[in-house]
Amino acid sequence: MTKIQIEDGRRRAVIEAVDPCVDGGRFPIKRTIGDVVQVEAIAFCDGHDRLRVHLLHRKAGLRAWRETPMALGDNDCWRAGFTVSELGQYTYTAIAWVDGFLTWRHDFNRRLDEKDRQRALLVGADLVAAAAARATPGNARRLTRFAGGLRGSQSVEERAALANDPELDALMLAYADRSLAVTFRPERAVVVDPLRARYSTWYEMFPRSCAAREGEHGSFKDCIARLPYIAGMGFDVLYLPPIHPIGRINRKGRNNTLTPREDDPGSPWAIGSVEGGHKAIHPQLGSEEDFKALVAAAQSHGIALALDIAFQCAPDHPYLSEHPQWFRRLPDGTLQYAENPPKKYEDIYPFDFETSEWTPLWQELKSVFLHWIGRGVRIFRVDNPHTKPFAFWEWVIGELKRAYPDLIFLSEAFTRPAVMHRLAKLGFSQSYTYFAWRNTKYELQTYFTELSTGPGRQYLRPNAWPNTPDILTEFLQRGGRPAFMIRLVLAATLSASYGIYGPAFELCEHSPREPGSEEYLNSEKYEIKHWDIERADSLAPFITRVNAIRRSNPALHSNEGLRFHAVNHDALLCFSKATPTLDNIVVVVVNLDPQRAAAGWVDLPLRTLGLPEDQPYRMHDGLSGASYAWRGQYNPVALDPGSTPAHVFIVQRFLRNERNFDYFA
Amino acid sequence: MTKIQIEDGRRRAVIEAVDPCVDGGRFPIKRTIGDVVQVEAIAFCDGHDRLRVHLLHRKAGLRAWRETPMALGDNDCWRAGFTVSELGQYTYTAIAWVDGFLTWRHDFNRRLDEKDRQRALLVGADLVAAAAARATPGNARRLTRFAGGLRGSQSVEERAALANDPELDALMLAYADRSLAVTFRPERAVVVDPLRARYSTWYEMFPRSCAAREGEHGSFKDCIARLPYIAGMGFDVLYLPPIHPIGRINRKGRNNTLTPREDDPGSPWAIGSVEGGHKAIHPQLGSEEDFKALVAAAQSHGIALALDIAFQCAPDHPYLSEHPQWFRRLPDGTLQYAENPPKKYEDIYPFDFETSEWTPLWQELKSVFLHWIGRGVRIFRVDNPHTKPFAFWEWVIGELKRAYPDLIFLSEAFTRPAVMHRLAKLGFSQSYTYFAWRNTKYELQTYFTELSTGPGRQYLRPNAWPNTPDILTEFLQRGGRPAFMIRLVLAATLSASYGIYGPAFELCEHSPREPGSEEYLNSEKYEIKHWDIERADSLAPFITRVNAIRRSNPALHSNEGLRFHAVNHDALLCFSKATPTLDNIVVVVVNLDPQRAAAGWVDLPLRTLGLPEDQPYRMHDGLSGASYAWRGQYNPVALDPGSTPAHVFIVQRFLRNERNFDYFA
Repeated sequence: MTKIQIEDGRRRAVIEAVDPCVDGGRFPIKRTIGDVVQVEAIAFCDGHDRLRVHLLHRKAGLRAWRETPMALGDNDCWRAGFTVSELGQYTYTAIAWVDGFLTWRHDFNRRLDEKDRQRALLVGADLVAAAAARATPGNARRLTRFAGGLRGSQSVEERAALANDPELDALMLAYADRSLAVTFRPERAVVVDPLRARYSTWYEMFPRSCAAREGEHGSFKDCIARLPYIAGMGFDVLYLPPIHPIGRINRKGRNNTLTPREDDPGSPWAIGSVEGGHKAIHPQLGSEEDFKALVAAAQSHGIALALDIAFQCAPDHPYLSEHPQWFRRLPDGTLQYAENPPKKYEDIYPFDFETSEWTPLWQELKSVFLHWIGRGVRIFRVDNPHTKPFAFWEWVIGELKRAYPDLIFLSEAFTRPAVMHRLAKLGFSQSYTYFAWRNTKYELQTYFTELSTGPGRQYLRPNAWPNTPDILTEFLQRGGRPAFMIRLVLAATLSASYGIYGPAFELCEHSPREPGSEEYLNSEKYEIKHWDIERADSLAPFITRVNAIRRSNPALHSNEGLRFHAVNHDALLCFSKATPTLDNIVVVVVNLDPQRAAAGWVDLPLRTLGLPEDQPYRMHDGLSGASYAWRGQYNPVALDPGSTPAHVFIVQRFLRNERNFDYFA
Repeated sequence: MTKIQIEDGRRRAVIEAVDPCVDGGRFPIKRTIGDVVQVEAIAFCDGHDRLRVHLLHRKAGLRAWRETPMALGDNDCWRAGFTVSELGQYTYTAIAWVDGFLTWRHDFNRRLDEKDRQRALLVGADLVAAAAARATPGNARRLTRFAGGLRGSQSVEERAALANDPELDALMLAYADRSLAVTFRPERAVVVDPLRARYSTWYEMFPRSCAAREGEHGSFKDCIARLPYIAGMGFDVLYLPPIHPIGRINRKGRNNTLTPREDDPGSPWAIGSVEGGHKAIHPQLGSEEDFKALVAAAQSHGIALALDIAFQCAPDHPYLSEHPQWFRRLPDGTLQYAENPPKKYEDIYPFDFETSEWTPLWQELKSVFLHWIGRGVRIFRVDNPHTKPFAFWEWVIGELKRAYPDLIFLSEAFTRPAVMHRLAKLGFSQSYTYFAWRNTKYELQTYFTELSTGPGRQYLRPNAWPNTPDILTEFLQRGGRPAFMIRLVLAATLSASYGIYGPAFELCEHSPREPGSEEYLNSEKYEIKHWDIERADSLAPFITRVNAIRRSNPALHSNEGLRFHAVNHDALLCFSKATPTLDNIVVVVVNLDPQRAAAGWVDLPLRTLGLPEDQPYRMHDGLSGASYAWRGQYNPVALDPGSTPAHVFIVQRFLRNERNFDYFA
């Protein structure tokens, strides 16, 4: 049982909880710049005395708290908010104290007996005089005047008015006796990220496949030429697989074979060769200058470059010879390549994080990030973070974000829920999800309800990918072009951040290496591709429309306002996203069946969405450009995947007056 | 952001949570002696390595942990339990480490390639040899023999068998390398109470109203004479309102009037007079010896005596003159009586817990408990604990239970939920509830579902009272004798602990002081009553039956196994309580309407209750003695409040064989 500290004995206020918090304050919550952090505190005291509760917040590193009075709601829950206007970390908590003056005034105002009221005024005067002793000279004079007034010769009514004077109220709050105040511990923390951490649109692309001419190795210069295409579709993050020299020893051939041809380029994730390691650039991609030019060109298109950080080494990575102690050594003296028996990955050597030389290893890995940060990179997609120690990530992300609070880290962990959540808690800004494998109405509703309303919403920001170079889902393999459209609309509207691996995606690449495999046939991971991005059946125009809708509708920039709605057809999924003020509402209806048309009635909660019960409202479909006049709770939809498998409605409330009787806004 | 400690760098195991816990470990959970505390830990490590997780527990004050291996379930959740066989506090947590040998063996058993397996055996041999270096000489020899075997010249198959030898497994666990193990902090605590803290049946009675002859002041001797009656009804706690001298100054008259007659006895809660204070006995009740005799006599009837602790003083309590600094002083020099403006309680002075002399005050109040503990009392009903500081209660209960872990404290706080929960968290063993005001099916289902399944179930033990000297509910005022039967059955079966204020309850006393009041007319708080406990319409026989059912059915000794079941009539409430093994199941059906008969179909979840789907089962009504053969999920019930408004069924599964074809057990 906790021993009571002797100095705590007279502290009667209790703060039981300060929320939001993650694991009792062990980890920070996440917000983006400009957000208002809404804080709730459960606080009370014994008896009937009046409590004051203030929200405290400060930028990390500052000593002084900023205070905001909290308002009492139901069940001893006090609420207030603070705005996070700078990147980095803030801490927050609450302070509470039993307020003698408030208690006195509350009791005084309820007293009926004249003599009682007179006696009570003297008690109040003493409280005011005591506050005067704590005040600055000027305010002390004002308080002393009030104390005199309360004690004075005026009528009880006049002195009662004085007791309730707002000026006195403000002074008594300013000089409240807070000697017995309690401050809740441990403080909570919030990481404030740039907006792109919450709302981002990713395009993954292999630079080596960007050459203008088939058969050539693409370069950063080719990437620059491709930027208008990418920006034109509305993407704002361009993510490149590893750009480093690729190992030659045990290099994998096409389709992951062990028998490469001389000219096979190898997997970009087999990092390192005599030409360098994680800080070097694959010579065929270009020079450091070319890389910087790409970063700058992307920026001028509103695109941030994201690099892949894969902490593993090809057999000829310089680390193996320079730092053999960072790898596991077998009894025969050789170093241990990656395995997951019976599978072997002879082209990859993992770091041994249990090495006694872990400190220089951590420092070196941190320096890899710093290297690319120094070249203008602010976003990192981290490969398989769940196969490196959690403590390492917490340390390295913490260190880096302290110096560069605008950094964004995307966790590429497809593993058990607890592990994915841990990575998000410890610092990753965004997380890959199970979205790729959630296809049915039940699966999508359950999963995105969990993501947007479960405890993880405070720290795990989903980034939804319909495909990746490793993931060609069965749904995409079998569903044809409508399947790609369905999955794009779902990713882009269910999740504030999403990404595609292109041009494979927009060109509806859908052949698996073999039946039952999620690997692409002739995967770009092992060979250079030449994509015909001008193809007539490309989804680029469709993607452009979807991303334009995203950009112009703030409701889609967050996952908070997500609500699923009933439709009386199992293949039809309906949900809305709304801003907190309901000034922007998007309603999405998707036919989840890429083969068959479906029709049904959508059931919208009119009051929740602030829609009129008795007047029509306009549903503008951002995909087709068509508008529909809906009325009431139930409205029909019909979606044929042969044309467009989804509506993305922007809701326009009907506003009619004598001047513009047909105006919708 | 948390700074990583340098020594943590190689610790790859993560324990995220150890449950159950209250407020992140700030408060202990509660169990009773003999319970198995089931613990869950969320634990994992990076990569594919094998983890070991052990539950640690120890009696408070001991240094050495006892360890129990935890078993892995879904979602990285590990489970194990430990038995609490002594009163007092235990702490528990979990320890986890990445187990190199387990990881090696798991990988080894999946290897297919013969050369790989041979190489791997050498790695395993090194791990075993390393364990030998950590072992006692005898076990070191055994381990060295295993290491030699793994390296040896036998076939790979034979050496593989050796690698999987259970003896080696046990030795490798015993001498595992735990240098990088992590132990979860903060440790969790559990308070282990006597059984009566979980399952108790209370009878509240004013000793002064127990005299054999009308008009006389009852005494402890009269209480002793009343014990067979109380024990006969099946009560095991006898709770007495304050037994101390009653103040004479500002004494209240009958019905709480300010104009007492000379012979009015006053309220027992106006404690203290020239005859003494909280450690003294009201002279008319008897001597210290009489009190001890009552304690002993009660004990011989299986009854524990519970005293009322009301920390407040009558104006003539010796504390006011001996310790005026413990009370608030007004500007005119007088001490402040209790008020809640415009109400005044001139017969009561509250302690000022903000006094600078709070330390001696706390010590004195603690000594009040110690005084009565010294006279054999182990149960305290604490009056209005929510009007004294929480820190005081946490301290005093903690101090007292450290010395006397068999103490039970009942919190009499009827206030906001957060405050009631705080008192339970900080140490009160049982809590009064809102039961008295929960009457409808919806209210009862919601409230008792919250109590039995909400987070509070770990620390708040409800004690349900249909009436108290302060609470005569409208339901009892208006519902007649059936209302008392309804409320008794509900309290006694919904809650493992319940109590009544008698003989007012069994005699169905139901007249309020005035309409709309919950105060009794001619309340026993202000006058001596003479109850005719032999009255023909007394509910004593009914109460006796209900308490006998409670005693013989372990399902009713806990709130854990409570489930509500559907009945297609709004006035019919149905619920079951079952032991974890389902070897005892009680099904209760209550007609909540004291005026009208009701009939409906009860819908029982047969599988959940382990009942046969295709055979009859017997429902034995412990109230009426009748038995019913039920079959299947739906069965009819009809309850007329004019006779008995409830069934309390003990479920008897049908067991038939060739020898006793009509046997139910």
